[in-house]
Amino acid sequence: MATARADTPSCSNQYPIPDRMKAWVLGGPEELSLVEKPVPQPGSAEVLVRVDAIAVCATDIEIIRHGVPAMIDGGLPFNKGFTPGHEYMGTVVKLGPTVDEFQIGDRVTVEVHAGCGRCQRCREGMYTSCLNYGFRAKGHRANGFSTDGGFAEYAVNNINTLAHIPDDMTDAEATLIVTAGTAMYGLDVMGGVIAGEGVVVIGPGPIGLMGVGVAKALGAQPVILTGTRDRRLEMGRQLGADAVVNVGGEDPVGAVQRLTGGKGVQYVLECSGAPNALNEAARMVNRGGRICLAAFPAEPVPVDLAYLVRNNIYIFGIRGEGKSATHRAAALIAQKRFDAKLIHTHTFPLAEVPTAIRYARERVDDAIKVVVQIRQN
Amino acid sequence: MATARADTPSCSNQYPIPDRMKAWVLGGPEELSLVEKPVPQPGSAEVLVRVDAIAVCATDIEIIRHGVPAMIDGGLPFNKGFTPGHEYMGTVVKLGPTVDEFQIGDRVTVEVHAGCGRCQRCREGMYTSCLNYGFRAKGHRANGFSTDGGFAEYAVNNINTLAHIPDDMTDAEATLIVTAGTAMYGLDVMGGVIAGEGVVVIGPGPIGLMGVGVAKALGAQPVILTGTRDRRLEMGRQLGADAVVNVGGEDPVGAVQRLTGGKGVQYVLECSGAPNALNEAARMVNRGGRICLAAFPAEPVPVDLAYLVRNNIYIFGIRGEGKSATHRAAALIAQKRFDAKLIHTHTFPLAEVPTAIRYARERVDDAIKVVVQIRQN
Amino acid sequence: MATARADTPSCSNQYPIPDRMKAWVLGGPEELSLVEKPVPQPGSAEVLVRVDAIAVCATDIEIIRHGVPAMIDGGLPFNKGFTPGHEYMGTVVKLGPTVDEFQIGDRVTVEVHAGCGRCQRCREGMYTSCLNYGFRAKGHRANGFSTDGGFAEYAVNNINTLAHIPDDMTDAEATLIVTAGTAMYGLDVMGGVIAGEGVVVIGPGPIGLMGVGVAKALGAQPVILTGTRDRRLEMGRQLGADAVVNVGGEDPVGAVQRLTGGKGVQYVLECSGAPNALNEAARMVNRGGRICLAAFPAEPVPVDLAYLVRNNIYIFGIRGEGKSATHRAAALIAQKRFDAKLIHTHTFPLAEVPTAIRYARERVDDAIKVVVQIRQN
Amino acid sequence: MATARADTPSCSNQYPIPDRMKAWVLGGPEELSLVEKPVPQPGSAEVLVRVDAIAVCATDIEIIRHGVPAMIDGGLPFNKGFTPGHEYMGTVVKLGPTVDEFQIGDRVTVEVHAGCGRCQRCREGMYTSCLNYGFRAKGHRANGFSTDGGFAEYAVNNINTLAHIPDDMTDAEATLIVTAGTAMYGLDVMGGVIAGEGVVVIGPGPIGLMGVGVAKALGAQPVILTGTRDRRLEMGRQLGADAVVNVGGEDPVGAVQRLTGGKGVQYVLECSGAPNALNEAARMVNRGGRICLAAFPAEPVPVDLAYLVRNNIYIFGIRGEGKSATHRAAALIAQKRFDAKLIHTHTFPLAEVPTAIRYARERVDDAIKVVVQIRQN
Repeated sequence: MATARADTPSCSNQYPIPDRMKAWVLGGPEELSLVEKPVPQPGSAEVLVRVDAIAVCATDIEIIRHGVPAMIDGGLPFNKGFTPGHEYMGTVVKLGPTVDEFQIGDRVTVEVHAGCGRCQRCREGMYTSCLNYGFRAKGHRANGFSTDGGFAEYAVNNINTLAHIPDDMTDAEATLIVTAGTAMYGLDVMGGVIAGEGVVVIGPGPIGLMGVGVAKALGAQPVILTGTRDRRLEMGRQLGADAVVNVGGEDPVGAVQRLTGGKGVQYVLECSGAPNALNEAARMVNRGGRICLAAFPAEPVPVDLAYLVRNNIYIFGIRGEGKSATHRAAALIAQKRFDAKLIHTHTFPLAEVPTAIRYARERVDDAIKVVVQIRQN
Repeated sequence: MATARADTPSCSNQYPIPDRMKAWVLGGPEELSLVEKPVPQPGSAEVLVRVDAIAVCATDIEIIRHGVPAMIDGGLPFNKGFTPGHEYMGTVVKLGPTVDEFQIGDRVTVEVHAGCGRCQRCREGMYTSCLNYGFRAKGHRANGFSTDGGFAEYAVNNINTLAHIPDDMTDAEATLIVTAGTAMYGLDVMGGVIAGEGVVVIGPGPIGLMGVGVAKALGAQPVILTGTRDRRLEMGRQLGADAVVNVGGEDPVGAVQRLTGGKGVQYVLECSGAPNALNEAARMVNRGGRICLAAFPAEPVPVDLAYLVRNNIYIFGIRGEGKSATHRAAALIAQKRFDAKLIHTHTFPLAEVPTAIRYARERVDDAIKVVVQIRQN
Repeated sequence: MATARADTPSCSNQYPIPDRMKAWVLGGPEELSLVEKPVPQPGSAEVLVRVDAIAVCATDIEIIRHGVPAMIDGGLPFNKGFTPGHEYMGTVVKLGPTVDEFQIGDRVTVEVHAGCGRCQRCREGMYTSCLNYGFRAKGHRANGFSTDGGFAEYAVNNINTLAHIPDDMTDAEATLIVTAGTAMYGLDVMGGVIAGEGVVVIGPGPIGLMGVGVAKALGAQPVILTGTRDRRLEMGRQLGADAVVNVGGEDPVGAVQRLTGGKGVQYVLECSGAPNALNEAARMVNRGGRICLAAFPAEPVPVDLAYLVRNNIYIFGIRGEGKSATHRAAALIAQKRFDAKLIHTHTFPLAEVPTAIRYARERVDDAIKVVVQIRQN
Repeated sequence: MATARADTPSCSNQYPIPDRMKAWVLGGPEELSLVEKPVPQPGSAEVLVRVDAIAVCATDIEIIRHGVPAMIDGGLPFNKGFTPGHEYMGTVVKLGPTVDEFQIGDRVTVEVHAGCGRCQRCREGMYTSCLNYGFRAKGHRANGFSTDGGFAEYAVNNINTLAHIPDDMTDAEATLIVTAGTAMYGLDVMGGVIAGEGVVVIGPGPIGLMGVGVAKALGAQPVILTGTRDRRLEMGRQLGADAVVNVGGEDPVGAVQRLTGGKGVQYVLECSGAPNALNEAARMVNRGGRICLAAFPAEPVPVDLAYLVRNNIYIFGIRGEGKSATHRAAALIAQKRFDAKLIHTHTFPLAEVPTAIRYARERVDDAIKVVVQIRQN
């Protein structure tokens, strides 16, 4: 039974918790195996989530192959023995000490980052920039990055990383919220007040497509999506894009200028990671415009800094979702402002995680979001 | 006599205004000649300034050689017959219709940009990003860029581009205010509240040195200046730098990490335009840090965008001074918070503008700020 | 014919403009008469608008009775001979010199304030706080307040005060945009990023009802409307309110606490002007909450400042619409995010302006928005 | 010895810690007694501070008399058995588990609020508005308010509430930093970028006097202090006020208009709690001005809300210091930008806390800041 202000973890007979669970764990690079391991225990400000469904993110694929990106910057070692996966949802089945913000049985979706709460960045509300990233003992968690994630039957989450979801939202749709949260955060950091303003989204991957949905839901006009595949672009239209541009057939900068009567737009959300995307984005915005980088090329690329400076352009790099943007995205999706489900293309059971990942990686059968449904409801 | 709310220009016997004046005008690239031309008339919201002194800016040298930078982006044609120079100060000698914000005899310094007041950017207060840049009929002025500047005896200024200066400030010092204003704007756009925060200034040119003065005046700690010339770095110390790094002798990123105990800084003001400066700046700031680009390399350079995105770094390109930063810089210098005069190294009369420019361009005799004193007071 | 960058006003045969027009003008307080007077001429950055329809605002009624509110603060004298009315829309029929932002024939709606563009507030983008309020020669216009408004066949507008409207929007609906713009500005100043956040709107007058529509369009959750009349509250439901509270039957603070599970909301938009509204609003928000005052009681009222300070509450007084909020509101209404037309209850022709005003003032037949249709399209 | 990332508390032979300590504890209202009680233990993210000195704040006097202010709003019960006092400084003598941000032996000063880190407000960086105020088990601490404070030999502090102080700063001066931090926070919330802008400080109590020092250090111009006592006003001059107004001799609104040439100021920091202070502040600022309430009258007072709305005025209630303003204030004082020590008037030993409080309460001998020096260094 959930008791407020309890000093010990609370659980319920309605959601019996086994001692051990199935979980995919990472050995070396590309070595994922399904094992049994103990169900983890929630600490203070934490709950145990029974994972009901999880989506595969491109970052998962990177992590499985190369380790957590931060390690490249001198951060974390390759995380042997950890469980990846961060786009999951599920049911609260146990409350850590002091937790009364959630109740057992609550359906929730998750975001990635629980900051340490004690560094300068967390203290100013920028928890995705936590200066103690990866320092578990100090309270930081980035599930699926530096702490165990959701390709498993259970996961521990800090309450800061949970958002309630309504009964009429499917498990699969709920796994898409964190992706929409990243797109929303991108719009937030550029200013957030975008009704009637022009927004270009570069790259119709999952974040880009969710970016179209969020931008349009907030009243942006026009919302223009650029990409290379017509099927993705068509999906962008269904999510609210006023115009789409296949860059195979038309120069995207010229297209944006054409579509805006030569005025350009105020904001670009760059989700492609293409080498020239930033230079193109700079020529899509008008003077004083803003660009959010939610993707990036693997190697350094030539950037025309002179153009950025002369035109007073601001650039915002974001690492995932921050400032509780996931909550805002969850609200928009719960209110059915756009149909996030459109990007969900395939579903597999827990036993087939490697297949799910292969579909996502190789875009088998034109896969966009591949969801692993761990438990049938 | 100055009358408030007059409908016609006002002038005064104390400051007799000739019909014609001496002015340097640009023919083709690198062709400056001293001519006589009519003294211009101030319109509504404008005044006539008797130019008393003007400093040479590196941008002046670019403009004289290549034309106004914006032309490169499809903007302005090479401005034949115009008078360059934008870092000037002087005395208000005539008021345009309706002007009562200034009085005849007021000593003033100037900033560059009077926005059109009618485009989206001006309407939101971002007048340096005016979408009608160079469109004189719509009200835009960028003196010394798109409209006549200050290498002349008189210049017309929109009242938005003027700041009062106190009696005890010399003409030469007053010409330095707009440079300090650019540095201050760079700190403003990064957040502005910097007491106790670490700031690195890259590049001890005039903007960088003023950046050191402003950052320290606002309480930043530590303020670190990096550069290649010891004399300039020493000047940075006198302006308030807590530490200086000669990058000839030490890797600047390593030095910043050393000086901050491995924590890095919150802000970098990049004033060097060096090809690798942005990549280095990214490694000087901590996660979530901010970088202002007040200078830029002429050609595109390789930028490690992945690092920027993974570390939540924001980058702010600025074109000169905005948001009335010049007024704030003027206030700090008037209050003697730092000794701007230190960067003033040489003085020439109006007839010797080409020599003044040569000194500035070739750094003859280690010149930093070269001032042309047009009138002896 | 509209020519870009013309130096003289442009007009068109398609929209012949008479020399004289019908206009309601104010004599003394409450003395409105319909007269003929010359059609005004647009200046630089201005256009002539043929007024097609105009709505009656409560402030119009105040102005007709008492003069412009600012006069109370030592501002303007009672404006004899001026034409009130500021919630109008129409067709651009003549362009002032240099205007190419609009074309003859464009359908537009208006906002009130064209700042002077030269005071500190305008320079920072806060044009509704223009320090030259009422100073026409310096460029300030507040149509229907300090300059002639729209109870007339034609009106001059600064281009800053115009927003395009689509063909499928009726004249009457377009007159409501400025009201929605005020509500949107209220949400803007409190932060603007409100998806998933709780908002209470106090007072179901036109601004309050539009506030409900805008808040819900931007994804706020829950949106709660409080008031005294069930019919108005029901209209609020149709505009998107998740809950309504008739304060005749339930204490509004208690109701908000009940509806939010004791958590309160993040934002209150106060549109009632009730004497105790601010104190109640303070108890509706949670700690750190924000309140926008878009209405006010005529006399000073007791305010519990201790509560505000102890709970870190911020209060934002707004005078009409600013920061181009009208454009954002126009975008949302053009995108049919909420049905603004619901608040339009009555229509009269130009000759019956006094009747229209009476309906609005006395709420005859439960009038909310009374529109004067000047021209039949 | 301090070891980084330790799992257990660390201490050092250099700072032997007794089992029990002397502490003043509150019985009923006004019942303070000096007792012996156990030295507390620091938890995760906490340290044990040996209290070296503490200043008496007016809020302490209120708490001793009436209990913690929040209780009035339905919050905390009268805190029997707790130790008040929040303006203290000392030496870190023991590190809680995981603490490596501080070392044993570090001299530190404190701020009051350690938010829970898990509510919406903490998550957005507004920890002084923590929604779990007073909920110790969830991690909230407000030392001297809801948890034990500094009228004792030792106190536990969350590391978020500590700032380093330099060796050349006296204990007494360090106790004043949190007061300056509150003043700085008041300037922060109003915008923070104030060089060259006019600021009025109402009320020359400790916060007001520190407000003068901080505002001037940041370059505000003019800084005007109003009050009733010439000696306090003179102290304001020494702290940097450009002008002072004794409201016994001149209407303060008129004086501010006189001193600013009728323009008013941009910002007012209200530190008096006088019943009419807000109405006067509103008439000191120009249109669009901002007012921070750092003090308040005990009872509701008449406020002219119409004036606030018509003039677009924003009001910011603050409860103490937030957004790490104490760190910024510490930086300015460490850099000797103003002489905080001026407001320190009296010193007593730990045994004489009641006398110290009496001096502060009754302003015996014109006391401003009364410091209790617990340990002689």
